[in-house]
Amino acid sequence: MSTGTKTEPRTDEDRRARILDATWQLIAERGFHAVRISDIAKVCGTSTGTVHYYFPGKNDVLAEALKYCVDRAFARQSTQLRAVHNAHERLLKLIDMQLPRVGQVRDEWAIWLQYWAEATIRPEFRPAHNEYYARWQETVRRIVQRGRRQGVFRADADPHVVALRLTALTDGAAIQVLTGVPGMTIGTMRELLVDFVHQELVAGAR
Amino acid sequence: MSTGTKTEPRTDEDRRARILDATWQLIAERGFHAVRISDIAKVCGTSTGTVHYYFPGKNDVLAEALKYCVDRAFARQSTQLRAVHNAHERLLKLIDMQLPRVGQVRDEWAIWLQYWAEATIRPEFRPAHNEYYARWQETVRRIVQRGRRQGVFRADADPHVVALRLTALTDGAAIQVLTGVPGMTIGTMRELLVDFVHQELVAGAR
Repeated sequence: MSTGTKTEPRTDEDRRARILDATWQLIAERGFHAVRISDIAKVCGTSTGTVHYYFPGKNDVLAEALKYCVDRAFARQSTQLRAVHNAHERLLKLIDMQLPRVGQVRDEWAIWLQYWAEATIRPEFRPAHNEYYARWQETVRRIVQRGRRQGVFRADADPHVVALRLTALTDGAAIQVLTGVPGMTIGTMRELLVDFVHQELVAGAR
Repeated sequence: MSTGTKTEPRTDEDRRARILDATWQLIAERGFHAVRISDIAKVCGTSTGTVHYYFPGKNDVLAEALKYCVDRAFARQSTQLRAVHNAHERLLKLIDMQLPRVGQVRDEWAIWLQYWAEATIRPEFRPAHNEYYARWQETVRRIVQRGRRQGVFRADADPHVVALRLTALTDGAAIQVLTGVPGMTIGTMRELLVDFVHQELVAGAR
């Protein structure tokens, strides 16, 4: 007999985390619209009633899955970024962590793409999206400011403009990787973004 | 009584065009997964059987809608681009025509975003996507080559690299416009892309 300590969630918080973990994975693999509440319940070994308790409507499923994977990605990135002192190296580390390699990061990208498609059509998805997106742009802005203070980035670099451009370029390049555009591999994407950082921030820096 | 010349499609080709026109519009407004064959039939005043004749499966609906709006966009762009002799002005014209202004172009972007989300999860969507995407990148490459010949772009500009970067930046910026990211308007997107062209292709050109 199992002690139940590992397989059975004991608290409300555990149960919620387990459901979210199964949900974002299912959405990343099958697509939001193909995932039914009963699929989530099945994977978690629980009832559809329990899942509905956490996701009152179908849109909550996608909204919560994005929040969950954004929170996880930020927690992961923050820890690793703080360990890198030099702002240039820190920005390259951020770029590296966001490359859509097969596995967790690619699955997170799959969720973002679905969320963008929905948010384009359904404005109610936009406020949460914009909050998460602003966090990402803020991370870039702070690294640019840090690099200017450290003298590793050009003194005339505009953190706001660089953040807009780098996030746009990252999203666009990721789309090409994820849809298999010939000539755009993980390596090409990295090179494109590293070159961007060099041209916008490093070239001509004191 | 109506003569039927304008409202009733008379040929198979007319009927197909009418169904496709209704379909891409419905997908752009409601989202691929929310559109039922019966919705398309209703808008076209035809039967679900007729619609099924043109779209044997649900995936064909999205695939054909993308093809339809890509073909239309290319036809529209080709005519207007050919009228612009100077390659720099031609590239700026292409950028301008792709800004996701409310209306037809924004609806076309909505279809692309949905297609990306699907193609990430379902590899069977990728070959068609990549064919259309390659056409776009080829358009950019040719304009860059033309600009080099005309001496309006830098002689060392790599058409392949510029096409990869400009398409990625355009897609990423459009996502920010379409999801309503604060600070990213149609005007900001235009500025970002015009600056890119200047920095990559014009600055330092003879």
